[in-house]
Amino acid sequence: MHAIGVDIGGTKIAAGVVDEDGTILAKTRRDTSPDDVAGIDKAIAEVYLELSGSYEIGAVGVAAAGFVSADRSSVLFAPNIAWRDYPLRQKVQAILGDEDVVIVVENDANAAGWAEFRFGAARDVDDMLMLTVGTGLGGAIVSNGKLVRGAWGVAAEIGHMRVVPGGHYCGCGHEGCWEQYASGSALVRDAQATVIIQPERAARLLELAGGDADKLTGPQVTRAAQEGDPLAVELLTELGRWVGEGAASVTALLDPALIVVGGGVADAGDLLLAPARKAFGEQLSARGHRPEASIVVAAMGNDAGLVGAADLARD
Amino acid sequence: MHAIGVDIGGTKIAAGVVDEDGTILAKTRRDTSPDDVAGIDKAIAEVYLELSGSYEIGAVGVAAAGFVSADRSSVLFAPNIAWRDYPLRQKVQAILGDEDVVIVVENDANAAGWAEFRFGAARDVDDMLMLTVGTGLGGAIVSNGKLVRGAWGVAAEIGHMRVVPGGHYCGCGHEGCWEQYASGSALVRDAQATVIIQPERAARLLELAGGDADKLTGPQVTRAAQEGDPLAVELLTELGRWVGEGAASVTALLDPALIVVGGGVADAGDLLLAPARKAFGEQLSARGHRPEASIVVAAMGNDAGLVGAADLARD
Amino acid sequence: MHAIGVDIGGTKIAAGVVDEDGTILAKTRRDTSPDDVAGIDKAIAEVYLELSGSYEIGAVGVAAAGFVSADRSSVLFAPNIAWRDYPLRQKVQAILGDEDVVIVVENDANAAGWAEFRFGAARDVDDMLMLTVGTGLGGAIVSNGKLVRGAWGVAAEIGHMRVVPGGHYCGCGHEGCWEQYASGSALVRDAQATVIIQPERAARLLELAGGDADKLTGPQVTRAAQEGDPLAVELLTELGRWVGEGAASVTALLDPALIVVGGGVADAGDLLLAPARKAFGEQLSARGHRPEASIVVAAMGNDAGLVGAADLARD
Amino acid sequence: MHAIGVDIGGTKIAAGVVDEDGTILAKTRRDTSPDDVAGIDKAIAEVYLELSGSYEIGAVGVAAAGFVSADRSSVLFAPNIAWRDYPLRQKVQAILGDEDVVIVVENDANAAGWAEFRFGAARDVDDMLMLTVGTGLGGAIVSNGKLVRGAWGVAAEIGHMRVVPGGHYCGCGHEGCWEQYASGSALVRDAQATVIIQPERAARLLELAGGDADKLTGPQVTRAAQEGDPLAVELLTELGRWVGEGAASVTALLDPALIVVGGGVADAGDLLLAPARKAFGEQLSARGHRPEASIVVAAMGNDAGLVGAADLARD
Repeated sequence: MHAIGVDIGGTKIAAGVVDEDGTILAKTRRDTSPDDVAGIDKAIAEVYLELSGSYEIGAVGVAAAGFVSADRSSVLFAPNIAWRDYPLRQKVQAILGDEDVVIVVENDANAAGWAEFRFGAARDVDDMLMLTVGTGLGGAIVSNGKLVRGAWGVAAEIGHMRVVPGGHYCGCGHEGCWEQYASGSALVRDAQATVIIQPERAARLLELAGGDADKLTGPQVTRAAQEGDPLAVELLTELGRWVGEGAASVTALLDPALIVVGGGVADAGDLLLAPARKAFGEQLSARGHRPEASIVVAAMGNDAGLVGAADLARD
Repeated sequence: MHAIGVDIGGTKIAAGVVDEDGTILAKTRRDTSPDDVAGIDKAIAEVYLELSGSYEIGAVGVAAAGFVSADRSSVLFAPNIAWRDYPLRQKVQAILGDEDVVIVVENDANAAGWAEFRFGAARDVDDMLMLTVGTGLGGAIVSNGKLVRGAWGVAAEIGHMRVVPGGHYCGCGHEGCWEQYASGSALVRDAQATVIIQPERAARLLELAGGDADKLTGPQVTRAAQEGDPLAVELLTELGRWVGEGAASVTALLDPALIVVGGGVADAGDLLLAPARKAFGEQLSARGHRPEASIVVAAMGNDAGLVGAADLARD
Repeated sequence: MHAIGVDIGGTKIAAGVVDEDGTILAKTRRDTSPDDVAGIDKAIAEVYLELSGSYEIGAVGVAAAGFVSADRSSVLFAPNIAWRDYPLRQKVQAILGDEDVVIVVENDANAAGWAEFRFGAARDVDDMLMLTVGTGLGGAIVSNGKLVRGAWGVAAEIGHMRVVPGGHYCGCGHEGCWEQYASGSALVRDAQATVIIQPERAARLLELAGGDADKLTGPQVTRAAQEGDPLAVELLTELGRWVGEGAASVTALLDPALIVVGGGVADAGDLLLAPARKAFGEQLSARGHRPEASIVVAAMGNDAGLVGAADLARD
Repeated sequence: MHAIGVDIGGTKIAAGVVDEDGTILAKTRRDTSPDDVAGIDKAIAEVYLELSGSYEIGAVGVAAAGFVSADRSSVLFAPNIAWRDYPLRQKVQAILGDEDVVIVVENDANAAGWAEFRFGAARDVDDMLMLTVGTGLGGAIVSNGKLVRGAWGVAAEIGHMRVVPGGHYCGCGHEGCWEQYASGSALVRDAQATVIIQPERAARLLELAGGDADKLTGPQVTRAAQEGDPLAVELLTELGRWVGEGAASVTALLDPALIVVGGGVADAGDLLLAPARKAFGEQLSARGHRPEASIVVAAMGNDAGLVGAADLARD
């Protein structure tokens, strides 16, 4: 059975027809505005009509950044789109004038993690932890072959596990959240701090940022590290250490067979993953009395959310 | 279908016939030695024969403190009993001369948590976190109605999630493990430290310990707190705070509907749970955008391991 | 011998004639601009001429927020005024056309602390720690009757002792500086975080801030605490705890007889000092084997910088 | 003027005649018992009589591990010798039958630090921090040419500055004391933890300890590091990091020109000091706006306590 996956971004939606092997057979997209939720409904309906013209479609999966209701029909809250208790499924069905179209809403990190689990880096295991190290730190949990959504659909808010009491302030209102140590934002902020306190070490980073530390980006740090810049290598090593140490804590709880690292920062490859693996090994509880999860890079790329949403809808 | 549950302690085993409602129909026990693993096999066989004489038994569940193999037949490692890669199921079947007896080995904290989930405090929810606050901190995780065992059967080593980088040394070789802050041992150790640094505040505790701080016990701290001793109340409040803060981190990952607190320290009741609830509320990620898990006391008492093991074997 | 004290603020300077008992005999002031350093020189010269018309003056002490050279003639760096390696003494002497006028530059927190030591809350001791809990956390150290300036004049940067590894980011580029936990800014930030995560508890604070958490001020938190608002009391208690715990660490190094707490947040009185004293007692090293420093509120008020600068210049 | 220095150890006392340049002109020693305080008095009297036979002696300085009274005549408390409020000066004078013999008691870490300040690594500066990294972490502070003793003689308990809230338990009853991270004991304990969690990395250390991790010593770790053993190098690097980071905090308070590192662990040389310097530079407040203290190895060796005590007595 084919399914359509729709990945809702801040300013556009991407959609595709996905077959049972996770292959994308056709793709399309629409520009949208994060404040115009009715426009997003309409765009979803449009891509459905467009794609279902050429393919027989069994279900539509919609991946969205936000909290999704337990029945997977509504978005309770989204940080970047104006959804508040928004009945997304019902709205799109109303536009289509067809209550029988199967529409399933899923958190985007869950969708991307599911794609890795079904078709990507974790396709051979039953228990997986996905870490998406981007601007923030998101993720997904698969336990015994099932996506862990939690009692109210808000599980896998991985970045808000506390790793340092009294630690860095987080936008969520708490202190010491993991994503304040293991994310692209943390990488940039630590780089900027070094510009203040050790400018002589930060010369290359400052150069890449055009002389303005406020404009430094995560990919610039990664590039400098790939060139061999010692500070950039050290910053990615430190970030990798936090990824690995936090993953060890999650592993004490969940015992995954595999830890998949995705998101923009994962482009740094072993500059990030080697220190993550080292720290994971050093922090893993009961090491020596258990097999040890591998830490690998995600395989599905930018289409992961779309593919995963389609597959979850098909379920 | 009736099942037998066997709970293996350090110096004795307790066994019982458990029906499908979790009721114990008959009980028996044997004295054992932690170093005599063959003696434990024999004792299990004996209680099986004794109990199966009067009841038709479909399966035997054995609850044991240790790491259990993923196929639930062997104990890989136990901290307090001399099992090392020990094929417990096969040994007992050999004594019985019957390979058809269904024997399922389960970690004791998992078994106790499962009993709470099926018949106790969490019988009305699908997603649960069990915290057993005893000498150490153990627990169990139920997600979407299934026990989370992990890829290699060693999930729910809850006490070894790190909560303080560079924190207290743990017997596991790491620093800052949750159980070093949220367990009876932590309670006693903090009380003993106060005897050193603020003896005038610790007078009642010292009295209960017969004048020797080394002999202070967790129940004595609880008793003093119940009498209103300010230091003891403060120590339990601090312990409760760590329970609640750690539970909030686990909740960011797993979104349980209910958190069940058991173990000896839970006898302190609201002296422990009220501060745990307060800290949980203060640390819960995305509070206000989600329902909030309740924190309640375990309901199954000392038979939880036996009942849970029986029920898991029946599955 | 009379001396003139000059306290340089961001937009004005205050000056006064101070006698040997610390009494201010006459005062005057000028408006200034933080970017116009020549204008500040000129204003200092003017107030000198004005005040020395009526009093015989032996020396001029200038209190300034910034790093002062070891010979106390120049400001090496100031955060809020455009001084960079600025020879303040020489500039003012040049305007006056008189190289014999004794001009001594001193860090403002040192000057204020010295006033407390000579004439205020610490006048009866030889060893003192001054903590100025304002927007940031500054202070002064007196050891054996002498102001501790350090090898290069930059001692007593008390707020930048690290108290939490991996802790809150500080404007200085580091993490976990004491002033990020024990200052008016920390108080306001923690109050604002509570508005996000526990809005129902923050109702009174939000009301005082006119409904806009971004406009909340430290004095509003203090006012709410004085009215009995539970959250505000808790926030000041937490701040006091950090004051006391940090003071215990400094005491392990310096063994002061007295700890004087000044700055705007000290207006909260025992709402701040009681928890500070409790935490200090609980954290003090070798308690029971040593006398214990008292923690008291500063006595000199807003003129402390002016009076202290005058007295230090007279030395 | 010549002076006698006496260094009281657990099982012996060492004494010597020290001239004004810090040169030892003659030495002697006696065996003593830590429980026999009268025997220690007698031994001090004996070495005085022996050495003063050949040299004209102006004063006697006694270095002892413990809290010394502010008037430097008594030991208030000693961890390893049975002194409790013990009037050491008076006792020795009584044996000698001569109240005019100048006897000055000094904390041993203060005495050793003073020797470095007067004749050793810090002889060219006025402001110094001495760190003695031995079994524990002790030290001494010199500010503006004066030893900082504090209001009650118990300053420079450097090892009990808290560096990790909720950190390692310390024998003093508190948590997170600096000496739990920057001492030979910390080094050994961390090495032993690695034997548990990463035995394959700890093979060389285990070999040096004769196969029994409980018998591992700090010098063995240093030796392995000098051979190039990666784990041992990493352990000393981590220890050095804590030395440097803590020194940066002390420097925010005291702004020393020089930081002298002594004690047994300092034998590791740059294996310890290079990471200490790196961490110090990274953590130093206001770096770039101030000169930077150097971190150097102590120069006075085992006689530092004796020489420093003699010199302090002469003052």
